[in-house]
Amino acid sequence: MSILIKNGRVVTADSDSIADIFIEGETVKAIGKDLPMQADEIIDASGKLVFPGGIDPHVHLDMPFMGTFSSDSYETGTRAALFGGTTMVIDFILQKQGASLADALKEWRSRSDNNCVGDYSFHMAVTDFNEDTRKEIKHFVEEEGITSFKTFMAYKGALMIDDRQMVGLMEEVKKQGGLVTVHATNGDMIDYLIAKHRAEGKLSPLYHYLSQPEVTEAEASERFADLANYTGCPGYIVHLTCEGALNAVRNATRRNQNVLVETCIQYLVIDASLYEREDGAKWVMSPPLREKKDQETLWAGINQGLVKVVATDHCPFKWEQKLMGKDDFSKIPNGHPAIENRMELLYSEGVNKGRITLNKFVEVACTNPAKIFGMFPRKGTIAVGSDADIVIFDPAEKHTLSAKAHHMNVDYSAYEGWEISGKVKTVLLRGKVAINDGKCSVDKGFGKFIKRNKVNGII
Amino acid sequence: MSILIKNGRVVTADSDSIADIFIEGETVKAIGKDLPMQADEIIDASGKLVFPGGIDPHVHLDMPFMGTFSSDSYETGTRAALFGGTTMVIDFILQKQGASLADALKEWRSRSDNNCVGDYSFHMAVTDFNEDTRKEIKHFVEEEGITSFKTFMAYKGALMIDDRQMVGLMEEVKKQGGLVTVHATNGDMIDYLIAKHRAEGKLSPLYHYLSQPEVTEAEASERFADLANYTGCPGYIVHLTCEGALNAVRNATRRNQNVLVETCIQYLVIDASLYEREDGAKWVMSPPLREKKDQETLWAGINQGLVKVVATDHCPFKWEQKLMGKDDFSKIPNGHPAIENRMELLYSEGVNKGRITLNKFVEVACTNPAKIFGMFPRKGTIAVGSDADIVIFDPAEKHTLSAKAHHMNVDYSAYEGWEISGKVKTVLLRGKVAINDGKCSVDKGFGKFIKRNKVNGII
Amino acid sequence: MSILIKNGRVVTADSDSIADIFIEGETVKAIGKDLPMQADEIIDASGKLVFPGGIDPHVHLDMPFMGTFSSDSYETGTRAALFGGTTMVIDFILQKQGASLADALKEWRSRSDNNCVGDYSFHMAVTDFNEDTRKEIKHFVEEEGITSFKTFMAYKGALMIDDRQMVGLMEEVKKQGGLVTVHATNGDMIDYLIAKHRAEGKLSPLYHYLSQPEVTEAEASERFADLANYTGCPGYIVHLTCEGALNAVRNATRRNQNVLVETCIQYLVIDASLYEREDGAKWVMSPPLREKKDQETLWAGINQGLVKVVATDHCPFKWEQKLMGKDDFSKIPNGHPAIENRMELLYSEGVNKGRITLNKFVEVACTNPAKIFGMFPRKGTIAVGSDADIVIFDPAEKHTLSAKAHHMNVDYSAYEGWEISGKVKTVLLRGKVAINDGKCSVDKGFGKFIKRNKVNGII
Amino acid sequence: MSILIKNGRVVTADSDSIADIFIEGETVKAIGKDLPMQADEIIDASGKLVFPGGIDPHVHLDMPFMGTFSSDSYETGTRAALFGGTTMVIDFILQKQGASLADALKEWRSRSDNNCVGDYSFHMAVTDFNEDTRKEIKHFVEEEGITSFKTFMAYKGALMIDDRQMVGLMEEVKKQGGLVTVHATNGDMIDYLIAKHRAEGKLSPLYHYLSQPEVTEAEASERFADLANYTGCPGYIVHLTCEGALNAVRNATRRNQNVLVETCIQYLVIDASLYEREDGAKWVMSPPLREKKDQETLWAGINQGLVKVVATDHCPFKWEQKLMGKDDFSKIPNGHPAIENRMELLYSEGVNKGRITLNKFVEVACTNPAKIFGMFPRKGTIAVGSDADIVIFDPAEKHTLSAKAHHMNVDYSAYEGWEISGKVKTVLLRGKVAINDGKCSVDKGFGKFIKRNKVNGII
Repeated sequence: MSILIKNGRVVTADSDSIADIFIEGETVKAIGKDLPMQADEIIDASGKLVFPGGIDPHVHLDMPFMGTFSSDSYETGTRAALFGGTTMVIDFILQKQGASLADALKEWRSRSDNNCVGDYSFHMAVTDFNEDTRKEIKHFVEEEGITSFKTFMAYKGALMIDDRQMVGLMEEVKKQGGLVTVHATNGDMIDYLIAKHRAEGKLSPLYHYLSQPEVTEAEASERFADLANYTGCPGYIVHLTCEGALNAVRNATRRNQNVLVETCIQYLVIDASLYEREDGAKWVMSPPLREKKDQETLWAGINQGLVKVVATDHCPFKWEQKLMGKDDFSKIPNGHPAIENRMELLYSEGVNKGRITLNKFVEVACTNPAKIFGMFPRKGTIAVGSDADIVIFDPAEKHTLSAKAHHMNVDYSAYEGWEISGKVKTVLLRGKVAINDGKCSVDKGFGKFIKRNKVNGII
Repeated sequence: MSILIKNGRVVTADSDSIADIFIEGETVKAIGKDLPMQADEIIDASGKLVFPGGIDPHVHLDMPFMGTFSSDSYETGTRAALFGGTTMVIDFILQKQGASLADALKEWRSRSDNNCVGDYSFHMAVTDFNEDTRKEIKHFVEEEGITSFKTFMAYKGALMIDDRQMVGLMEEVKKQGGLVTVHATNGDMIDYLIAKHRAEGKLSPLYHYLSQPEVTEAEASERFADLANYTGCPGYIVHLTCEGALNAVRNATRRNQNVLVETCIQYLVIDASLYEREDGAKWVMSPPLREKKDQETLWAGINQGLVKVVATDHCPFKWEQKLMGKDDFSKIPNGHPAIENRMELLYSEGVNKGRITLNKFVEVACTNPAKIFGMFPRKGTIAVGSDADIVIFDPAEKHTLSAKAHHMNVDYSAYEGWEISGKVKTVLLRGKVAINDGKCSVDKGFGKFIKRNKVNGII
Repeated sequence: MSILIKNGRVVTADSDSIADIFIEGETVKAIGKDLPMQADEIIDASGKLVFPGGIDPHVHLDMPFMGTFSSDSYETGTRAALFGGTTMVIDFILQKQGASLADALKEWRSRSDNNCVGDYSFHMAVTDFNEDTRKEIKHFVEEEGITSFKTFMAYKGALMIDDRQMVGLMEEVKKQGGLVTVHATNGDMIDYLIAKHRAEGKLSPLYHYLSQPEVTEAEASERFADLANYTGCPGYIVHLTCEGALNAVRNATRRNQNVLVETCIQYLVIDASLYEREDGAKWVMSPPLREKKDQETLWAGINQGLVKVVATDHCPFKWEQKLMGKDDFSKIPNGHPAIENRMELLYSEGVNKGRITLNKFVEVACTNPAKIFGMFPRKGTIAVGSDADIVIFDPAEKHTLSAKAHHMNVDYSAYEGWEISGKVKTVLLRGKVAINDGKCSVDKGFGKFIKRNKVNGII
Repeated sequence: MSILIKNGRVVTADSDSIADIFIEGETVKAIGKDLPMQADEIIDASGKLVFPGGIDPHVHLDMPFMGTFSSDSYETGTRAALFGGTTMVIDFILQKQGASLADALKEWRSRSDNNCVGDYSFHMAVTDFNEDTRKEIKHFVEEEGITSFKTFMAYKGALMIDDRQMVGLMEEVKKQGGLVTVHATNGDMIDYLIAKHRAEGKLSPLYHYLSQPEVTEAEASERFADLANYTGCPGYIVHLTCEGALNAVRNATRRNQNVLVETCIQYLVIDASLYEREDGAKWVMSPPLREKKDQETLWAGINQGLVKVVATDHCPFKWEQKLMGKDDFSKIPNGHPAIENRMELLYSEGVNKGRITLNKFVEVACTNPAKIFGMFPRKGTIAVGSDADIVIFDPAEKHTLSAKAHHMNVDYSAYEGWEISGKVKTVLLRGKVAINDGKCSVDKGFGKFIKRNKVNGII
């Protein structure tokens, strides 16, 4: 099977050409001007942007949380991702405290295997590091192709590890050729503030926000950077939201450290004023949305080269699920739907408004995740021999985001009514047209688990 | 005329493929696996790296300085650059205080035009900013394709402008769509220290070093960053050498500023201990070589994404010229030869020793200079439609740097006897084989002046 | 002649007692509870605070400026100071560029000698440092008792020295046992902005403010700190006004440097909104008033121990003089009257509002200036053997500041209508009652020139 | 009973006089030149320094630790303190996790009451903050006169509280008018490193040091500062040892925070090289001794005004007790004897070597502890009405520190053989000669418990 994408404006992090792309089987075979190859199928991309399939390294599908599950299954989630131009996601396996990493992997595989429409991998969240867990790290890196280990500095008693465990984990992960990623907020402080607000009868979504002030994130980011620097382990902060936390990373540059930073699309484009709305629960996530000044910091951080990835932390819950917390913010399931919106929002708010270049857009949404997490050069770029994960995008088409139009399994949109410039038209995954004309032409099971390589934080 | 480069490992900042490259005329026509095109010439690149031609944005050819001229003409300099895998350079025009920018351009053109073997452009060094000069900026940006304006914070009475002029220039350059670059050292302090050392009879090359302590560079870098931040003008620090100066840039990130930074290959690999040698004059340059801790800082800065370019500040003088200062360090012509060595040294010391990735090597030596200075995507990458400026490189070949072997017009090597892993084998410039098998097959006049686009500091 | 001050609450930087003070001749003889000494005069201080005479180390009396003279003579100025509880001032001698320091001293002495009511000293402002000037430093330190040397980083062509001169001066002053003080603003930037605003027809007092943005002070403070650190010379920044500048000092603490900082009372209590008033010229001074956030920074800086002195930069001009600039802010004589208001304002806004302690009030207004500038322990405290410079202060008395009531030779008050808690009632200078019941009982010539000791910046 | 100290050089933080001091009962009645008072006893202090009794706010007497007790009882410890010129100490009560603060107070009182020779107070160490503990804070502040609450960020399971408890405690203490003090090291990291070193058979005292690297203290100091800033609670870091930790405090000044800092005499004068000695256990304390660069930082910090107190953390153990850990550094009781040496060492190494002024010596060793902890102006200075706690000191006398000569109940000296310039000759406590001619003339029970006032961190 071969495909020829003709005459598109092919854009990667370091190129910008009018060219054809010839795909054979799962990979790109050639990129050229007026390629002479015969193809089974020809796609005319004139006037369109053609860029690599997006990689969202931070999603939670079918995830057990607060007695329910995030509402997107591996099928609906990865399909929605494809509709939004994201061809691969990295989801999180959560170790159960007291049990092994292997047990968790098995459980997660039971939900994900053969159910994904798009490609996927897992981060292994280590919630209980001990001498037994230590022994499992090598196996994950070398056998399972899972080379990133997520940690939580919050959610004591459920997910949080303490600094003793953190240092131990970092030493082991560094040794085995992996990366430690972190949810960097001070869980103890947050637990105090939640309890205090509840005791005072302050129960609306606004108090979710006020229970996680900027300092809780800044402090934990500083601490994580300190531990990573001491151990020499490559560190990656997920969903960084604010000036205080980015400043922790900036300060760490002074000692020649390079803490890798991911932000999420929502922290770039929406802010905490939403928590004052009736339906504020829709945006209850952790960390919470921040202020306008934080958005400016994050856009600047991208251009400074310090914020290397824009992800989503996609973790949707239906309104009915969100209502579990209607009388108490602390019972609202955390998370919001964005897996389908990331690429279009980043293009529209970033490239179209002149905040970032088109090349930078590709770099943070596609290429860097692949480099950081060990899938490059197979994923994250359009290049000969790389997987033919390709988005054809109409930069001129305007449309409106809405729950009515989206494919995520959630009955509202976090961006309802947003006017967007630019639309994903066609998406190829490993050489197959997966999305076209608003339709998905691949089924669950098409998405492959991608084994990842060893990494060392240098990209 | 067409060329097919077959089976190389094609590496850019964001790709890494075994592929053929088909070139027609001056540009890349296609990149692919087993390309079917017929070509006039076939080059077998099996087992070789194939990466974009290097861009050295900081060279001084045939430059009048201290009563003499730098010893490489535009011909010998750009030819040596090609031998070293650098297909384009940006040289500096120096305004004469009291005269116009146009006068200087005319003078420089009289030396460079029709004399270059490789492609070239100019930065316009503004040494006398006033209301007349202000009016010339727009013309340079829009008509001459010269969009970067160099300033000196040192060399009072000859090249230095004061902060009043700097702010004025920044406002105008920002308005016209250009970039202000800077030699950021505190000339007043340095003048004091030179005079002091001379008065004390301290005249050896070591005192060149001791007359330009780290603080002179850190201070000026802070000041430049402050002024650029105030005016909102994109700023670029050339030949940054040390921790103190990079920390000024790192601190500026906290206010969301992005000061672009160039270092030079010598600051990454050699240090001030050389000034204690008999022939220390060979390394007399400004700023001087620094300490080991500064090398570590600069390598880290590259990986942090803050040091965006590795250049050379190539400014060779023959030993006879250097001897002008044999009794007084302040009379030694400043500069050292490196235009031919940059790519191989950076590969050997950077990639081969695991300090940076192969992609990062391309990014800082080829792609970023093109993006920052307005030649992208024509230059700086290997992509369809981009100029076919291509280096074929043998990563396995070991060789020794030596004046005997180099092509620069200077009778010593600053790296005499250095063992290098990796060698430039073949170089194409705009689709023509310029270097092969140790021979240059293009003549002076082949190198074109490249008009550059407007820039804004966001890449 | 002896005096017994009875039953006051005697407060110094490190004591707080109900006590009597027995004075004999010019100095304090004893401090005690129910002292048995017989005195020629008894002053009942029950219910009053008794603290050391204030020292204002930054005043400009009878100073030639912009073709006129500051309106307070040494007589009226030092008398007004006494009314406000300030018993000693340090004024500035300005070297004329091209002439010697000795010439300037002579000129200043001709205006000040035998004309002062209160005690005084001079800083020597070095506006032209060269090999001749260098030779005079030692004489000033050892013979004249003038151990502080003021520099200007602004006012090019009149007062400014460049960084070359600054480093030379610092080396010499350090060697001789003195201190370099600085007006730290970037004069070049300011000159640019003044010219720009004038060219645009922006001529109101507001543009005085906008011509000296925070960065002009932050930058110069950083630079001064860098040079002082390099030379090892003790440095003191006069009239520091803003967060940016204090942060330069705070950052310098990281390299174990201790830059001494003076702010002035006005920067603590009034802000730039005054420049939008019709009579904004009253507050035209350099640096200009800043923002509320800067006031917070300065109060915090005092409590952090980094802001060590609160002075005034008293430099009054009558309204008629201010009108020289009614059509052009750049022609408004710079300065405002405060010599009489400093102590009461600092008490009322600082101590009374709980921002600083009573001991800290004494420390920054009396003791630290004496320690830093080499008059301690003779001045700046109430102690046996120290000069009997003493203020008796009613903390309970409320009054209103007004030009009608003040003794400065200027026809408006910068604080007209301000409600003050606490009033200076009686002031002794070297054992003599100088102020009592709103009357001054000493004449011009009573004030002595105080020779100062060598200093090293460690207090 | 009255005493007249004649002709000494009386030095406080802000005065320096040749004077007599007349004492009646427990307090100073008068300070003067040639005081006429008749006294029961006359002490000739000619040629001597006379300064306030030292206050050591960090000692551990008769403290249960690791199954033993620190070897100085309240009697021997406070007596040794007096011999060294320290007239008051603040000891620590340790809450037992699970029990109340009141229980701990009762237990500590049972050991201390009627057993102290010198004056004393307690910090209340809160090791288990919960809703019950919260209710006790007010009582301690208002009734017991204990206004400082110590916390531990290390020693998990015994003394450590987590950040949730820390924030809760801070909120309550701020509300009640107290101060939170902290042992700021990351206990989790340390526990990891101890376990690791032990597992590797690295058991010598050097590994005590290597188990508490600088980062463990820098990190915890940053975190403590963050929490204190968020709650607005005044915070005080005890025994700060290193550059990294002081930089955390310096960085916090940028947000207008003022974290109070105490260092201890040992961190100023001895370093970690001692851990390589056979008898390294003598200096096993937490945090451990650091490097020369840290000493420089601390001396600078004192002069910057950021390090406000020099204490001891006196916690002696006899050699036999130290031998509990002869085969395992983690079993060595932590602490070293210094209560008797602090004042002389600080004078000799600080004042005598020109690092700090005599006034600063008094400030950090006497006055600031009194101001910070609510005993000023009763304690910490020589002033009318203040307690007559006075040291008469011979600056000219040289002597050698030795276990043979000291009065602490420990069989070695941490400073054996140190040559000291300056010796405590006579000490008065509340108007009574306690030490003279090498003899102590007061008995246990003479030392009083001093109730302290509310504090707010502003001094």
